[in-house]
This record gives sequence, C-alpha cells and structure tokens, in this order.
Amino acid sequence: MAPEIGVGMIGYAFMGKAHSNALRTLPYMVYPPPAVARLAAIAGRTESAVREAADRYGYARAYTDWRDLVADPSVQLVDNGGPNDVHAAVCVAAAEAGKHVLCEKPLGRTAEEAKAMLAAVTRAGVVHMVGFNYRFVPALRYAYELLRRGELGTIYHFRARYLQDWLSDPQARFTWRLASESAGSGALGDLGSHIVDLARFLIGEPTSVAATLSTFTRERPGGRVTVDDTFAAAVEFASGASGTLEASRVATGNKNGLHLEVNGSHGSLRFNLERLNELEVCTGSQGFTTLLMTDPAKHPFMRYWWPNGHIIGWEHTFVHEFAHLFEAVAGGGSVAPYGATFEDGYRAAVVCDAITRSARERRSVSIEY
Amino acid sequence: MAPEIGVGMIGYAFMGKAHSNALRTLPYMVYPPPAVARLAAIAGRTESAVREAADRYGYARAYTDWRDLVADPSVQLVDNGGPNDVHAAVCVAAAEAGKHVLCEKPLGRTAEEAKAMLAAVTRAGVVHMVGFNYRFVPALRYAYELLRRGELGTIYHFRARYLQDWLSDPQARFTWRLASESAGSGALGDLGSHIVDLARFLIGEPTSVAATLSTFTRERPGGRVTVDDTFAAAVEFASGASGTLEASRVATGNKNGLHLEVNGSHGSLRFNLERLNELEVCTGSQGFTTLLMTDPAKHPFMRYWWPNGHIIGWEHTFVHEFAHLFEAVAGGGSVAPYGATFEDGYRAAVVCDAITRSARERRSVSIEY
Amino acid sequence: MAPEIGVGMIGYAFMGKAHSNALRTLPYMVYPPPAVARLAAIAGRTESAVREAADRYGYARAYTDWRDLVADPSVQLVDNGGPNDVHAAVCVAAAEAGKHVLCEKPLGRTAEEAKAMLAAVTRAGVVHMVGFNYRFVPALRYAYELLRRGELGTIYHFRARYLQDWLSDPQARFTWRLASESAGSGALGDLGSHIVDLARFLIGEPTSVAATLSTFTRERPGGRVTVDDTFAAAVEFASGASGTLEASRVATGNKNGLHLEVNGSHGSLRFNLERLNELEVCTGSQGFTTLLMTDPAKHPFMRYWWPNGHIIGWEHTFVHEFAHLFEAVAGGGSVAPYGATFEDGYRAAVVCDAITRSARERRSVSIEY
Amino acid sequence: MAPEIGVGMIGYAFMGKAHSNALRTLPYMVYPPPAVARLAAIAGRTESAVREAADRYGYARAYTDWRDLVADPSVQLVDNGGPNDVHAAVCVAAAEAGKHVLCEKPLGRTAEEAKAMLAAVTRAGVVHMVGFNYRFVPALRYAYELLRRGELGTIYHFRARYLQDWLSDPQARFTWRLASESAGSGALGDLGSHIVDLARFLIGEPTSVAATLSTFTRERPGGRVTVDDTFAAAVEFASGASGTLEASRVATGNKNGLHLEVNGSHGSLRFNLERLNELEVCTGSQGFTTLLMTDPAKHPFMRYWWPNGHIIGWEHTFVHEFAHLFEAVAGGGSVAPYGATFEDGYRAAVVCDAITRSARERRSVSIEY
Repeated sequence: MAPEIGVGMIGYAFMGKAHSNALRTLPYMVYPPPAVARLAAIAGRTESAVREAADRYGYARAYTDWRDLVADPSVQLVDNGGPNDVHAAVCVAAAEAGKHVLCEKPLGRTAEEAKAMLAAVTRAGVVHMVGFNYRFVPALRYAYELLRRGELGTIYHFRARYLQDWLSDPQARFTWRLASESAGSGALGDLGSHIVDLARFLIGEPTSVAATLSTFTRERPGGRVTVDDTFAAAVEFASGASGTLEASRVATGNKNGLHLEVNGSHGSLRFNLERLNELEVCTGSQGFTTLLMTDPAKHPFMRYWWPNGHIIGWEHTFVHEFAHLFEAVAGGGSVAPYGATFEDGYRAAVVCDAITRSARERRSVSIEY
Repeated sequence: MAPEIGVGMIGYAFMGKAHSNALRTLPYMVYPPPAVARLAAIAGRTESAVREAADRYGYARAYTDWRDLVADPSVQLVDNGGPNDVHAAVCVAAAEAGKHVLCEKPLGRTAEEAKAMLAAVTRAGVVHMVGFNYRFVPALRYAYELLRRGELGTIYHFRARYLQDWLSDPQARFTWRLASESAGSGALGDLGSHIVDLARFLIGEPTSVAATLSTFTRERPGGRVTVDDTFAAAVEFASGASGTLEASRVATGNKNGLHLEVNGSHGSLRFNLERLNELEVCTGSQGFTTLLMTDPAKHPFMRYWWPNGHIIGWEHTFVHEFAHLFEAVAGGGSVAPYGATFEDGYRAAVVCDAITRSARERRSVSIEY
Repeated sequence: MAPEIGVGMIGYAFMGKAHSNALRTLPYMVYPPPAVARLAAIAGRTESAVREAADRYGYARAYTDWRDLVADPSVQLVDNGGPNDVHAAVCVAAAEAGKHVLCEKPLGRTAEEAKAMLAAVTRAGVVHMVGFNYRFVPALRYAYELLRRGELGTIYHFRARYLQDWLSDPQARFTWRLASESAGSGALGDLGSHIVDLARFLIGEPTSVAATLSTFTRERPGGRVTVDDTFAAAVEFASGASGTLEASRVATGNKNGLHLEVNGSHGSLRFNLERLNELEVCTGSQGFTTLLMTDPAKHPFMRYWWPNGHIIGWEHTFVHEFAHLFEAVAGGGSVAPYGATFEDGYRAAVVCDAITRSARERRSVSIEY
Repeated sequence: MAPEIGVGMIGYAFMGKAHSNALRTLPYMVYPPPAVARLAAIAGRTESAVREAADRYGYARAYTDWRDLVADPSVQLVDNGGPNDVHAAVCVAAAEAGKHVLCEKPLGRTAEEAKAMLAAVTRAGVVHMVGFNYRFVPALRYAYELLRRGELGTIYHFRARYLQDWLSDPQARFTWRLASESAGSGALGDLGSHIVDLARFLIGEPTSVAATLSTFTRERPGGRVTVDDTFAAAVEFASGASGTLEASRVATGNKNGLHLEVNGSHGSLRFNLERLNELEVCTGSQGFTTLLMTDPAKHPFMRYWWPNGHIIGWEHTFVHEFAHLFEAVAGGGSVAPYGATFEDGYRAAVVCDAITRSARERRSVSIEY
C-alpha cells in the first residue's frame, strides 16, 4: 500500500490548478504510486474562490490565511503556488513547522530571500523542492542522460531563449507580475530562472554573465511597470562552455517558446517547449534527427502513459515532478539530482541577480554562491 | 449540481486506461461539468487484472463477464473499449438493456455488423457515440469550423494518410489486431476508419473509392496474419472534391502520423497528429501559418486548460469527447454533429468495406449507405 | 581539351532559359567538363523574340522554323524545350537527321506518340534523353544510391504528390497547357510524369493503377479547359510495394511541392522539392534526420559547387543533367541508368495513359509496356 | 547597349569562383543588364593555379602580383576576394589608381584598417562596396522592406546567430582563417561581421555590446590558433531594441545556419540561411507563416529567375549584388542604402572590435564610430 501524504496547497489559480490536476492524476498513472496525495487543504485570499477551488479539486479544507494551512496537522507537505512575494514567508514558516515544502519558481524574489529559505529548510531537515518542472519534460530528462553519458563529447555551447509575447501590445494590462514588489523581477525571474536552472542541470555551473535588461513599456493600463520585459546575457560556464541566455515577454508570435540548443564536439541537441514531445539530436555532424519522445520502452517517464506515438501535454511534467518528490518524501531523501532543491533555487536566484547587476553596472559579473 | 452518470467500462488495457483517465479528469477540468461519471463497474476477461484495474481507477465493481456489467443497474452508460469482436454483442445488449452506449472505433468489424448495432441503439432510443476521438482534437474542431464557415472556398482536395510503423519489422509479434476474426480488418479498420470519419466530418460524403490493400508479412511469431498492413485509395466526394486516403502499419519512422491536408479555392489547411497542438492554415495562397492551438480565448476546448502556449496531450481528446457525450446524455439529445453517432460509425464501415471490395474486385466502387 | 557539341535549342521561354543557363554554366562549374556546348542555334515561332533570345544567351543563329534548326549542320544535339505538341515531330526529324536528342518531359502527349519517338531514336542510333531533371537533384540521386545499396531494406511504400496552385483561382487564364490538343493531359502529364519517372527510378516498375482524374474549372478566361486539374492513383509495384501518386494544380498554398516518401523495413526517406537541398532519412525506426545535401565530399554533384552549407538552386539540376548527357554524347553511350532515356519516357507515358484509362473505365488497370 | 566594365579579380578560390560565376551569369539573367563585365584579369599567388583559373572562367590576363592587376588599364573595377590580410593594401592601391572597388568581408582586420580603406575610396571618389552579400538574399531584402514600411511596429528585438561546425573536431586542420595575423579575428570577423551588418541594415545602429569570446582548441594539426572559435554578445540599439549576436564554428550539426529573428510590437520575422528561399513572417500575433520567396511578381530579385516555386541557390546573391554594383558604377552613384559601402564595412568593424574589447575588459562597451 502506498503511503499517504497530506498536501496543503497555497494558491488556486494557474499553478493551483496544474498542481491539483497532477496530484489527482498521479495515483493511477504512476502505478503503483510511490505515495498518494491526500488533498488536505487549500489556501487563498478570496474566500468564495478558495471554497470553490476546494470543492472543484477535492481539498478537505479551505483557508483564507496561509498560516492556518501551515498549522493544520493534516498537512505534511506545503505546496507553495502563490505569488512570488509570499514564497519566502510561507516556505520558512512551513519548514519551521516541520512540513516538507515544494515552492514554485522563482524560489525568492532575490538571492538573499532565497538564501534565507534554503537556510530554513536545511535547519528543519525537511524535504524541499523548487518547481522547475521542465527538468521533468521527458525530452529534457533524456537530454540530461545523453549529456551525463558524454554522448555529445566536450560541450562547447549552451544556448537558451525563452520567448513569450503576452506583453507585445503596449495596451496589455498590468498584473502583479509587472511590479518588482510582488514579482521581484520580470521576464528574468519568471522565464529566465527556468533556463538558468536548465543550464545548471544540463551543463553545470555558470561562472560569469554579461547582460542587458530592458523594459519597453513603462506605463500600462492598471499600473506602472517596475520589472524588465526582457533580458539577454552572454554566459560562461565552469566547464569552459559558453553561450547565451535570453527571455522576453514581447517576442511577438512566440507563445511559450523555450528554445534550447547544446553543441558538443560529438553532437548537439535542440528542444522547443512548444513541441515538448520532440527532441532534435545530432550525433556525429550529420544533421538533426527529430525524435518523438513517446516510447514507453525508451523515453523517460513514458512508461506511465500511452503506446508509442501518443503525445502528452505540458501539464504532465507536474505528474512526473510529484512522483519524484513523493519518492523523496516517502524515502526521507533529497530530490537531487533530478529534481531542483532549494540549493538549486538559491543558485538560480544568484545567477538572476548577477544578470541584473551586470546590466546595471554595465560590466561582466562573476557568479559566486 | 452536476448530474451523475454511472459508467460501466469494458476493457482495462489501452482504451480502458485512456477513458478512465478522462472520466476522472473531466469533473474538475471541464468546470462546471455537464455531468460527472460515477465509476460503477469495469469488465475484462482476466479476474486479477480486472480487479487491479478497478482498484487503480476506482471502479466500484469488477466483472469478468461483460453481461454482468450490462445487467448492473448502477450502470447507465456502457463504454465499450474491448476488442473489435465484442463491439457488436456488447453494444446491442447494452442498448436492449436501455443503456447509453459509447463504442470504440471501428464500430463493427463489417458494415453489416455496424448496421445491426445502429439498428439496436435506434430501436432502444439510447444515446450512442463512436469513439472517433480525433473530432475532439482542438485543431480539427477548429478546422471543422473554418470549413463550415466556407473560409477555404470551394474544396478541391482532401488528402489523409495515417502512418504507423509497429509492424515494419517482420519479426514483430502477432496480436488479436492481426486476425480478421477478432479485428475485422487491419490498418483499414483501425487507422483507416479514423480518416474516413474525418473526411466525412470535414468534407462530406465520399461517393467512390478506387483502392489497393496489401499484407507484406503473412507469418509472424505467434500467428498467421489475416488482415491488411496497408491500404491506399483514390476517393471522390459528393461535393466534387477528390483526394486520397491511406493507412499503414509499416511506414517506418512514423509513430502516429495522421497527416491531413485540405485544399480549397481560397485556402488550405494541414494537420499532423504527432503535433496535434498545431494547425497549419493558408488563407489566400501565401504559404502556411503554423497556429499553436492553445489560446483559451480562441481555440476549441482550450478554455478548459492552461494559459496560451501550454500544449495538451493526446489523452485529453477523451476529456472533450466525454464532456460532449455527457451533455447529450444529460440533455437527452444526440452527439451529432460534433460527435460521431452510430450512423457515422456505420457509414465509416461502409466506406471501409467499399475499399476492401475495390481492392479485391480491382474496380472503382460506389459508396451507398 | 573538352570536345565541343553544337546545341540547337527549340524554345526560348521557361525551358529555353533554364537550359541555356545550364549550358553556359557547365564548362566552368563542372570542371574539367566532359564536353562543352557550342550554342549553335535557337528556334521559336516569333521572330523578334527568337532573335532577342539568340542575342541574350549567345546562340549563333536564330530560326523561326524548327526544321531549319534540325537541318543546320552545326547542330549535333537538338534540345527540345517547345510545347508538348511539337515534341514528337521535332524529335523524330532530329533523329532521322542523325542528331542526338534531349526532349523535355512529357516525351509525347500519349504513349503511342512516345513509342514512335522511341522507335525513331533507336533506329537512328543517336543518344537520347528525356528531361526528367529531378533525377539530378542531389538529394534524389543520393536517395537512389541508398535504395540501390538496400539500406532501407524491403521497400513497402512509395508515396508521391506533386502539388502546385496556379489554377486554384477559377479566374486564372487559359494557356496551351490547358488544352488536350497541345498538352496531351494536364497535371497528369506535366507533374505526374515526373513522379511516375521518380517512382520507376527509385523503386522499379509499377504494375497497376487505380485512379481518379478531375477538372474543377472547365471554362477559364481565354479558353475551355480540356485537360485534368488533378489526378490520384493507388499504385502497386512489381516488387510488392504499394503507394500513391497524386498531382494537382489547385493545391492552394503549394507552389512546387513535389513530396516523396519511401518506407522500407529498415528505414525511410522523405523529400520536398521546395527544400531540394535537404533529404530526410530515417534509419532504424528512430525518427527522421534532416540532411543538408551540400557536402562536396559526400553528396552527389556537390563537388561542382561550394563549401558545405551553401545551398544550390533548382536550376542547377540542368547543369548536372547536361554534364551527364554530354558524357554519353562524348563517349557514345546511353544516359541510362542515371538519366532517363526515351524508353523511360515511353514507360512514363504508358503509366500516365493507364491512369487516364483507369479513371475513365473506373477499374484498376495493369501496366504493360 | 549595356556599358562594359573591366573587372580584375583578386583570388581564385571560394570567392573567386563564386564571383566569376555571378559575373558570367549576370548579363543574360539580369536582362537587360545595367552593365556587363569584361573579365579583364585575375590575380593569385600560384602561377599555375591562377592561369588555370583564367582559362576556366575566361579572364583575359593572369597575374601573380596583384599590383600588376591594379595597374592594368583594362581594369576599371577591382574585386578583392583574397584573404583578409590583403584587403587593405589592395583596396587602397586600387582606389589610388582610380579603380572602383568591391571588397569581400570583413573590410579590414580591424576598425583601424577599415577606416584607412574608407578614407582611400572617399578621397579617390570611386564606387565602393563590401561583399555583405546577404543583403541580396531575396528574403532579407523583403525583410528590409517590411521593416522600412513599419509593418512590424516598434522593434523590440533583433536576435542573430551564425552557426557553423567545421571546427567542432579538435583535429580539424589549421588554415589562414585561424591566425590573427592573416584573418584578424575568427568567427567574429568571418561570421559575426555578416550579422552585425544585417543588424545595422535591418534595425539600425547598435549602441553597446556586452560580450564573450572563446577559443576551445588552441593547437590544431598545422598550427596554433590565435583567433576566436565563437563569440556571444548582448546588444542594445539606438532605437531602444535589444538582442543578441552570436557566431560559432563549433556548433555541431549546423553547416551554414545564419538564423535571424526580429520581434516588433505588430509582428515578427525569422530567417535561416540554410533555407534562404523562405521567410517566416508573423503579422498580428497569430503564428509564423512560411513564405516561399520565389514569386517573380512579389519577391525581390525573383523577376530575374523562374516561375514561382523554383528555388534559387546561395550563389545568386552575388548576381544580385553585382547587378546593384554595376548600376552604381554605370550611374556614378553609391551602392547605399541597399548595398554595403566601405562606411558600412568600417562600422561593422567598429562593432566587431567593440565585441573584442568587451570580452577582454569584461565590461559593456559603447559603440562610437
């Protein structure tokens, strides 16, 4: 019999919905499951909305104050899917209450905030994970394995750009994601943190960044924008590799285009999140092979799903992520190296802060953790 | 409060898993749901397996004889996901017991069998649907709407090929899908029925076929193959359009490549099931635009899912299909025109039979329902 | 020193321009050249136009009657790029005058006409070639070599569709290509003959066709259309392979989309003429690799051109074709098997005629040469 | 009658071949031609090779000392396709001798060298052009026109990476391109100068760069590498746009992958040199349309070539470039704004030097001309 883990969910919007779906799907798709979620409680600011979410997804209790959720003894794991400005307070309180913690990315609004969060979970000895869910895309786990086995040879380049376009229109409305107070940063923390994490996961530690940050539209209906629309950085890695990191919310025509390319002496790979069931692999130098990552016998995570050829959706990265987290919780271990720990979340924040500093001070900045 | 529908599932393999997942996902993703499934019972031949499936997916009862499931008063809807040779008996019995029926494709092994099934559901006055789930791919519903609004002008061509490769290796093992007794036909009924249905859904009735059928490997480990590996047909439509239909299980390198192209006087569209979140649309004659079909505000079904740019998987076609079926069951109506009725299933079988006859008799065969 | 061949060109429009360009480019790009063209004469109906063409391309003489060109003793090779209805008369006269002959495709308007042309060149013992220039696309020669070496295993399928759209608009004007008297047939002879030839070149002889032919617009500004807009055929090959052949001039959004796919037990390949510098190859069953066919050390014909990565244009198929023809003329041999002989041209015409008969008689037609 | 221009070609290798082909093709493809090249002379170091090149391409004279070519009174235009370290001396001498000058890119090895070359042609009042031939790719001229008409709105991003892989193998041999003495720089000057020029052509002046440079393999068979293998730069533009510039010779699997993306408030475009006949255009935010750039009635330069759908090769960029240059020479004007002047060549060199300085000094460097 699979152990049960009482989950307390913070937030009922995008991430609340995506996580709830994964928690409900896990026990019959990842079968037998390493553990099963008991949906203990959900918290959010608006009472009617949080109550509806509890009904909809099947949470036993609904709270309007996250402190009540953290204090609830039926909660063993706090899943923090709220806005960035509640990440730190909730995670620290949860750790201090002895709860395991999953925090959505970015971990903190700044590296300093992330460092305090890391200290809290370390002190408490709880299991901790950051929701860098793209580590759990089958194609990217497969890429990780190719790279770890050295199949691409010496790595020369890592190149990533995460392109969206929901702010291309200067009349697009202001949201909490556009205020530095609530979001920390803009495209940098929201999108950039994902590719910084993938760079570290796939290639290793970056050692320097030389970057620019821009905000194209300062005044939007509903508020003043105090975060970046885009950043770009030339980056160097400890291994000697070099490359670029970019993210934008004004890259018109791109909806969720997280594009990666890795080049090594013996091969290369390319990935695009809008076609996340595919990985393009070049071995030798003979051109890229488009692999459909759906073979249950060969491709990571696909044994949970369908016969070869049937693609899965973005949302199932969370099923894989929770399955991995639940193994760690059930086994009392760490989510490393496949999952992102708070240490990884902190390091991503250090790199993001270095990008900001590089852009402001107009100089190359070394990464130091 | 959404009404509850007691569902009895026949089969626990591929389709049983896919349907169960959809039934469990529907109530919180299609929200508020038109109706909610109560997982009343599941039936299958092997007791231990059916019992495990009941536990895994949450069905209240497990039967090894489908007759018991049909007779179970807690079942209002029989979902027939068993092998093709039990489609007819189960569906007829279910209809006679006054149950609504969803039957996986192809409806019968032959048009004659399908006709009897259609007669049974008509007589019983129950709601009936065939599992042509690709009608519920967002891109294909969108294509249907474009075509119905006449945006492509006069339609000249419909071109479809459904390509898989799991039989490319002559040593691939025999299964029930390779025996005419259990499967009816091979690539024709399994893959061809899907594209025949899509042709009828999108373009209208075909009037003639001129076809070939081939079996490349007759003896396989485990048994003698008595169905086709592939078919190809030149086809004419009542509207004057012409085109081709093809399917193959030996099209090496294609995993689930259902490729469609429609050409009209004012535009064209292209679709590939391996990239089911995309539709290529040409308006005017200026080249094809790759549309990502993920905008909740614009694209069919996507309001159920995620912010724009986050792709969904093949499995969610069943969520959309059940939502549509449940509306019909709750409202007492038909699934037409968006869903495939048993009339549609029968007509697809007539076309498939005409293809077989054309290949055997080496002549063009007219379609008559 | 390369021998000189006096070339007499019939026609100064599309093919006249393309061939003249190739003749002028050959001697310094295919270096050292097997022979060099002396541009002896050009013939066409309109005196001012033919004289301008002679000046422009550098032909020594201009004729308004092709008989004078055929009779010109400085002409050793007649290059027949005129409309289809002058193919037979010119080629027969040229052969009878002892001239080598290159004839644009289709060889004749019918198989009967082609047969007479084949008889004439055979009787005369001259070198003969049909302008099936796509045999000289690097990717397709490479495909030929892969197939001849058996690298794709047993061939199951050959699938070709040649899609254009210049007649999608019902108001597109009438031309000689739309009258059966001058053109023989429509999409069938013009586009279909190319893919029939490629099927024979790559896979071998077809043995039967089951086909449809359609004309969507009968009356156009400038004349009444008496040829087909499109055809589609299910086809069987002597080797046991099966597939489809299609061509259309109303496939909106496709400009020159000659798409091929070959599937074998050990691999597959795909090609699209609009990206003629690429070949998609699948070996094993692991997905298609996009090969850029530009490596001088590996890819056919590319030693004539540029360093790897620099693509060539459609027009250079003619440079390769002439280089091959000139070797045959200089060496006194045949253009087989890489080039298409009049025997190949005749056989393509037999297949095209069988497609027409199959469509008219609504039955499968066997191919007999 | 078209005027004749006596052309003296420096170099007979890659560029010598490509330019000679263009000069010979121009008079009948660009018809009527603005001027016609008389192939007056060719110069190169190795006597036998330069003599063979003269024979092969039809140059009247062959010189082993470029000074003789510059002094030859039959030469009106010096076409400098030699290695980078002879660019300056030849161009300055040619200008001083009153010859018009076309110089291959990069103009000089450094901005300082380029500045002297610019001064020389300005003083002499001769027509001058730098061989940034990608301005003459139909898709990129079309992009220029779209941008100039403002069809993409406010430009937010310019993103370019020029990826090759001929140095991925650490055992690839040393050439003059790998020594700073002869080449100036590596990927930066060779590939980077192209994308710097395109950035300026399409978007306008860059104002700052923050960059890295790397050399992965220092010792190669045949010599010690003293130039970069790769660079990456975050870049800001005077218009407020931001983006990245990258080039690499070790991007395994990429042969000549010059990838551009421009994002504006109303649309975007994408381009890849390996598919140079295509341009992907997004207007509105609805996804990218793949345009085949082959319509004689719509697309730049295509009136010279073939009916729609027939793609051209990389080499024809030089035909377009010479046609433009010859108009300037015949008319006594400048090649601006469509062609790159020595001023443009100098500015590209300033940006490249700034990238080098930024990488060395580990700081953002402002561009000042």
